[in-house]
Amino acid sequence: MDQLVDKVLAGDKRAIARAISAVEDGRPGRTDLLKELFSHTGNALIVGITGAPGAGKSTLVDRLAAYYRAKDELVAIVAVDPSSPFTGGALLGDRIRMQSMSTDPGIFIRSMASRGNLGGLARATVDAVAILDAAGYNKVIVETVGVGQDEIDIVKTADVTAVVLVPGMGDGVQAIKAGIMEIGDVFVINKADREGVLRTERELELLLSIGERPDGWVPPIVKTVATEDSGIEQLANAVQNYAEFAASQASQSGRCYGRRAAAAEQRILDILRDRLVDAALEKSQGNHDLKAMAQSVAERRRDPYSVVDEIVARLGLTSDNPGSGEKQTPQPDKNR
Amino acid sequence: MDQLVDKVLAGDKRAIARAISAVEDGRPGRTDLLKELFSHTGNALIVGITGAPGAGKSTLVDRLAAYYRAKDELVAIVAVDPSSPFTGGALLGDRIRMQSMSTDPGIFIRSMASRGNLGGLARATVDAVAILDAAGYNKVIVETVGVGQDEIDIVKTADVTAVVLVPGMGDGVQAIKAGIMEIGDVFVINKADREGVLRTERELELLLSIGERPDGWVPPIVKTVATEDSGIEQLANAVQNYAEFAASQASQSGRCYGRRAAAAEQRILDILRDRLVDAALEKSQGNHDLKAMAQSVAERRRDPYSVVDEIVARLGLTSDNPGSGEKQTPQPDKNR
Repeated sequence: MDQLVDKVLAGDKRAIARAISAVEDGRPGRTDLLKELFSHTGNALIVGITGAPGAGKSTLVDRLAAYYRAKDELVAIVAVDPSSPFTGGALLGDRIRMQSMSTDPGIFIRSMASRGNLGGLARATVDAVAILDAAGYNKVIVETVGVGQDEIDIVKTADVTAVVLVPGMGDGVQAIKAGIMEIGDVFVINKADREGVLRTERELELLLSIGERPDGWVPPIVKTVATEDSGIEQLANAVQNYAEFAASQASQSGRCYGRRAAAAEQRILDILRDRLVDAALEKSQGNHDLKAMAQSVAERRRDPYSVVDEIVARLGLTSDNPGSGEKQTPQPDKNR
Repeated sequence: MDQLVDKVLAGDKRAIARAISAVEDGRPGRTDLLKELFSHTGNALIVGITGAPGAGKSTLVDRLAAYYRAKDELVAIVAVDPSSPFTGGALLGDRIRMQSMSTDPGIFIRSMASRGNLGGLARATVDAVAILDAAGYNKVIVETVGVGQDEIDIVKTADVTAVVLVPGMGDGVQAIKAGIMEIGDVFVINKADREGVLRTERELELLLSIGERPDGWVPPIVKTVATEDSGIEQLANAVQNYAEFAASQASQSGRCYGRRAAAAEQRILDILRDRLVDAALEKSQGNHDLKAMAQSVAERRRDPYSVVDEIVARLGLTSDNPGSGEKQTPQPDKNR
């Protein structure tokens, strides 16, 4: 394990891939690995790129990566595949991309697939980004399809998030809901050589003018034609501008509980959630009992809330009285 | 609260709507409500309908609901809106649908929107289905867009799930990943008057013939043209056939840990996860401390895993040694 840490820190690509697989598969030892690596993180700029399927995100990410590479920066790309049975493009796009870029030693590309459990993908992706950050990549680009809550949560952990639109998408920008305002630090209209780009831009400007962000930032709109390498420098500049803005905000006193702290809080809660459930099941009775309880719930002999009450009570963590706000005396527990 | 329970059990639509809002908004008292209602559940047939955007699910669901209504069954429809910024159709479709059906007292229609927290939508939807089940609806149809992990998790809790495809979708059925086999009990090729229906059917048959399900069920393929009310009876029959098959499987000894038990297990774990985190934060130090810990993680002074170790240790739930499998002696706790 120590050897793996050293190799990751040295930027060994095979070690990095192994470390990411370890967090993706939830292998034992991954926690120690991440603990060791954590103090070496915080140097990379994490760039989230999200948008509807077909918006041309993969090409855009490739071009942005090539732009950073031309400036001699080390670039990692994490492509998040939600493993929906109805979207099959991410992995395929990744494979095509890998062929064109795999000869460059300064780039690392990885697809993250869902492990089928709620939130598992989001957590594994955040861990993978931490590994790549510790490994010394200057830019870590996280690409998501942006259709599920998981993916929204992932891009929220990025330092800068760009939302990619295309002209004439659906019923135009009206189809985009208010939530977009919180997510996009930069807006990209890709395929900007298409008809309707002006209308999309005007609608987007209107939408952005309605809601003001708490931090006062006005997200810029960048027009790109990724397939022709057009607008990529403007995108990189917009990303850099927001990163510098956010950094200056964070350094001001009183405003220091910024996005990284919010992401860290979410991270702590996610890890805590998993750890507590594992500990609770281990300490109460283990897996067999859970199956028996599930069976009794399935047969409607018990309700799931009472079952959870019982597990929580066994642990001495009674919170049956959420309204009271007072510390409760531990209750006698006949199951112990 | 008791009054609300009685009214829900009596099928009062306003009370049902209020109860669903309570679980959706995570209001206090919802747990007691669900506990009371739970013993009255298990009678409805929960039908999940999922598929890619544009597959015509809403129309199909409407027609299926009308078919059940013609048989004098009470029908509830739960339309799950993932609140992705890039999909805006679900609520609109719901509004249109409500206009055509709202005069029928035997039907209840509800949209569920994401509350922005991971997994919150899935849990609220399962609770809403339980409320409708307790309220006496014979069929509860859960419609999801099927693009995110959350929604896949939702349809997994249904008794029968139909996956809706359309001819010539993307690169055909090849684009559909293996995961589909676990989800679909019935496959629907909607818009079956379109070109390419035979090819889609043949590809689907091929895909279904490759993987055998653990329960031995061979999912039927039903062709529909929802807009012309064609194939709806066949769909209803296919749904009924699988429901009867699953019931006969469940009644056989040794095979009784079926889908409802698996759904119940997931449900217990979901509730447990939330309860434990709430209890842990309340018992350790509350919200202010969490923010301070998050700040220290954001500044890389601490790593999130050690922070969680500390919280768990404070609770006397040490599980630092997951490999040991032995009960650990409670450790001295200086913070108490």
